[in-house]
Amino acid sequence: MGKGAHTREMILDEASELAAKIGLGGLTIGELAARTELSKSGLFAHFGSKESLQLQVLERNSTRIIDLVIRPALREPRGEPRLRGLVGRWLDWASRNGGCPLVAASFEFDDQPGPVRDRVVALQRDWLDTLTTVCATGVAEGHFRADVDPRRLAVDVEGVLLAFHVMHRLLSDPAAREYAQHGLDTLIAAAR
Amino acid sequence: MGKGAHTREMILDEASELAAKIGLGGLTIGELAARTELSKSGLFAHFGSKESLQLQVLERNSTRIIDLVIRPALREPRGEPRLRGLVGRWLDWASRNGGCPLVAASFEFDDQPGPVRDRVVALQRDWLDTLTTVCATGVAEGHFRADVDPRRLAVDVEGVLLAFHVMHRLLSDPAAREYAQHGLDTLIAAAR
Repeated sequence: MGKGAHTREMILDEASELAAKIGLGGLTIGELAARTELSKSGLFAHFGSKESLQLQVLERNSTRIIDLVIRPALREPRGEPRLRGLVGRWLDWASRNGGCPLVAASFEFDDQPGPVRDRVVALQRDWLDTLTTVCATGVAEGHFRADVDPRRLAVDVEGVLLAFHVMHRLLSDPAAREYAQHGLDTLIAAAR
Repeated sequence: MGKGAHTREMILDEASELAAKIGLGGLTIGELAARTELSKSGLFAHFGSKESLQLQVLERNSTRIIDLVIRPALREPRGEPRLRGLVGRWLDWASRNGGCPLVAASFEFDDQPGPVRDRVVALQRDWLDTLTTVCATGVAEGHFRADVDPRRLAVDVEGVLLAFHVMHRLLSDPAAREYAQHGLDTLIAAAR
């Protein structure tokens, strides 16, 4: 990775933390310059526009979710262990500084048409498809009943993740992780 | 209700729709003036400051949730029917124009300390307490097992609501309501 690309990634990581705090909508090149003490002209050279910066923050986080959550989970045995691995790693990811920027963006941009919303929709669809596929391996392996609809189960699991985000990040509830674990256990038991 | 109070409520309803679209953080007196074609000075006279406007939008929506969701649900028979009534009415509420502003604010303000975050936390706690109490009537009535923890069940139900918000508002999935119904059915069946 060249120096320019490396600098770009570092700035995108800082931009991601900032976006997690103030929302992707509040993330402008001016705001990023003010908080990082980098020059506005330098940031413009790297990112071009507010919208381009927001889109690149989305991509950066999508890549990190693939690296930290999805790829390691796919090394778990198919079926229930893989589903548990995926959820556990996502909970670790959302427990990091600022929570999951894609979750915040899913609620922030649902009524704001444009390229950022389109990308949030596509990333959320990809994530649900991944969850659905992993739930389907549970049916294929015989861990879950044959009549379990993997998509329905995936939506129920997504609910557990979103509730964790609220319990942990907004309400600072010390039992947040235990609630999420119990929620997942309930869904898995119901699918058996 | 006097004319002034009536005007104030009307403006707060418009402010709520705007907040649902662009987020509570984007809701400034200037932005509200621009979109409603009301005078900035008139709005300042009604609301005083951006923060005060945001807090009043939260109160207005809290009142509407009590009127449209909680109070009618509390007229249902205790236990499972009341839980189903509460969830069904919340899904109606979140299907309205712009979705539920309190949900959006729960993700937007989780990292922004101050009076608005404090109020969002308090309202979210009140809502979870209501859900918990209604789940507890299910245990008391014998609809749910005696060892069901009403708080855990409430958090699981909250997950169903949040997943509905994403499936319906962000992904425009025509099956969103059916998924939510199925998610609730699964939780209730597991609690029996």
